[in-house]
Amino acid sequence: MNIIEKIIAQKANKDFVKVGDEVTISVDLAIAHDVTAPMAIKQFKSINIDRVFNKDKVAFVMDHCIPCSTVESREQHNYIKEFSNQFGVKLFDKSEGVIHQVLREEKLCDTGDVVVGADSHTCTAGAYGALALPVGSTELAAVMALGTIDIEVPQTHLIKIEGQLKKGVYAKDIILHVIGKFGTNGFTDKGVIFTGETILNLTVEEKMTIANMMIEKGAMIGYIDQEKEMDTEKIGEVSDITCISAEDIKPVAACPSSPANIKPVEEIEGTKINQVVVGSCTNGRYSDMEIIANVLKDRKASDDVTLIVVPASKKVLDKMEENGLCKIIRDAGAIIINPGCGPCFGAHQGLLNKGDVAITTTNRNFPGRMGHKDAKIYLASPRVVAESAVKGYIVRPGTVIPLEV
Amino acid sequence: MNIIEKIIAQKANKDFVKVGDEVTISVDLAIAHDVTAPMAIKQFKSINIDRVFNKDKVAFVMDHCIPCSTVESREQHNYIKEFSNQFGVKLFDKSEGVIHQVLREEKLCDTGDVVVGADSHTCTAGAYGALALPVGSTELAAVMALGTIDIEVPQTHLIKIEGQLKKGVYAKDIILHVIGKFGTNGFTDKGVIFTGETILNLTVEEKMTIANMMIEKGAMIGYIDQEKEMDTEKIGEVSDITCISAEDIKPVAACPSSPANIKPVEEIEGTKINQVVVGSCTNGRYSDMEIIANVLKDRKASDDVTLIVVPASKKVLDKMEENGLCKIIRDAGAIIINPGCGPCFGAHQGLLNKGDVAITTTNRNFPGRMGHKDAKIYLASPRVVAESAVKGYIVRPGTVIPLEV
Repeated sequence: MNIIEKIIAQKANKDFVKVGDEVTISVDLAIAHDVTAPMAIKQFKSINIDRVFNKDKVAFVMDHCIPCSTVESREQHNYIKEFSNQFGVKLFDKSEGVIHQVLREEKLCDTGDVVVGADSHTCTAGAYGALALPVGSTELAAVMALGTIDIEVPQTHLIKIEGQLKKGVYAKDIILHVIGKFGTNGFTDKGVIFTGETILNLTVEEKMTIANMMIEKGAMIGYIDQEKEMDTEKIGEVSDITCISAEDIKPVAACPSSPANIKPVEEIEGTKINQVVVGSCTNGRYSDMEIIANVLKDRKASDDVTLIVVPASKKVLDKMEENGLCKIIRDAGAIIINPGCGPCFGAHQGLLNKGDVAITTTNRNFPGRMGHKDAKIYLASPRVVAESAVKGYIVRPGTVIPLEV
Repeated sequence: MNIIEKIIAQKANKDFVKVGDEVTISVDLAIAHDVTAPMAIKQFKSINIDRVFNKDKVAFVMDHCIPCSTVESREQHNYIKEFSNQFGVKLFDKSEGVIHQVLREEKLCDTGDVVVGADSHTCTAGAYGALALPVGSTELAAVMALGTIDIEVPQTHLIKIEGQLKKGVYAKDIILHVIGKFGTNGFTDKGVIFTGETILNLTVEEKMTIANMMIEKGAMIGYIDQEKEMDTEKIGEVSDITCISAEDIKPVAACPSSPANIKPVEEIEGTKINQVVVGSCTNGRYSDMEIIANVLKDRKASDDVTLIVVPASKKVLDKMEENGLCKIIRDAGAIIINPGCGPCFGAHQGLLNKGDVAITTTNRNFPGRMGHKDAKIYLASPRVVAESAVKGYIVRPGTVIPLEV
């Protein structure tokens, strides 16, 4: 069995599982946010039971519309709050951050745990070795009641990345490179394990950037090798192996309007932009903020650009503030908004009109993702995005400050 | 002539004006924000001239929907930006703050200036001796073209407040007390001058709280005496005089659903609340934030309360951050949002549903002002509001921390 299969077997209380087996596994954490929780709660209530499977293993995080941008979202927040109080489940409703960041910071789940979340980017938890399963609200309701989920053991594809990343190439470029190579359906219903020297050397924050976008290539489960050193034996048997040389990965961007429409940044250099967003569960962590602060220090974003920065959590924001990053970033003309999803999913806090062109560190650039369907969205690393904000058009990393910095 | 008439006469280039005279006065500053500027620009363009009267005397501040909460608001921002670039007028579109705070900080107008603004709270500038005239977008368009405005010299009512304010009584209580006394139409088409020892001893920030709400009692012009010492001669002849003793002013709240429905806080004590907002052009300045930080330090807002804090400007936020206030306030469970109008006018960033009850430092509590028409809104001082946030119900000042603090 490979690592993914081992966790499944353990959680299914079996000695052995193989690809195609249908198993029921126990769940260590069930999560939802303010957009998906109301439907899950409604479904849960329709089952008519008086408790969740384990009140310490259910959590709701209000991150999508916070503060509430509409009367309807406030109604939903109130509904979730009432349920949380009644059933004693964990509620984060003070702009603690994006759900995927909060559950890491609060240690709500860890390596080897199974987390089921009513959000497609639940896969982020694969970064630290959790088995993370994104589901719909109805399925989450069942998990909230039963504490288990039925899955089919997937085929597993191993992606091994070896070598040293070039200067100006970041974790975001790694995952965009892979999505570009395999397409948005490249791993449908499959498990994916990332390993190799390059991956093992990444920080957890960087691994979270990679794990976060596993869903953009359709993976059912994304898992990042947790070993300190390369050990293919430990990973176990897989269906496919792809080897990638880190040296082949360039600074890239996902161009309108698919996360798989990957081009080297140098090919799109000069594209005029009028909004830049830094943040999200993909790239809203402290290390990302350090990268952009380095670029923005004593500089100004272009007058043509609306620069929005949204820390992934209150803890990230606290640290930014403590170390002077907030001041640097605001003085550059950025609007720092409260921790949460911000403009990433196009409900409020920075929408685009037709004709607008944005470059962002987020994870999706489908038509209409951030407002008008005719707005254009590019996805790239914090470095590319910040340097582009200064110039007012897309530039390769190293244009504003030397690559070595 | 009284102070208001003297400014009018000077700006009309006349030696003398009297009540009822219709005069054309020169304008030192014309302002609008993202909700009113688009219509003003549209009207301006329909006149078909190629310049504003003075590009250094026209300013737009994006404060109502920032970051843009809808595609439509982004369209409006883009429209305003395009016009600003074309005509060379000042544009503040980086969440610099609420228009009335920004024009003070940026010294866009000063004592004795005439400022015309397409926002009802333009009256805030009366705090520092500007003659501030709120107008509609169409009239602003004419001002942008001509640099003048036609007004009728109003009757002037003098309000003289003498004596020492009691502990726990703030500038907000003074203005609410006066609005309660005269009603929302008490000064329609009139000028109002505030003077007296109590007023003269206030800081400019406190005076701005008072001037800000002049419009809530219908005043055409609100002016706060700028002298250091009491000098009734200098104020000149007025139509009416009201004397108020500072000792008679209690901590009060405007109850649902009128700014004139004033009750002593002690009479509404115990009213359950589930949202608290601190900020706005009324009470979003640094001194207001110090008051709430004092209350919130090492405490938590009630779990039942959504506590939203919106600094009136970037400069306020910078200073809060520098002095550790942001950390204190966020650690109490507050959501600090980017400088601007925030939830005050009910477009985004903290809406209420039916059944919700809020207490806020803002200036209006009409039905629907912050979301659903059946939500209830109380207006009070930052002190009352912060202490109530901790308790989860309305309390008189001194309940959470001693009045002497």
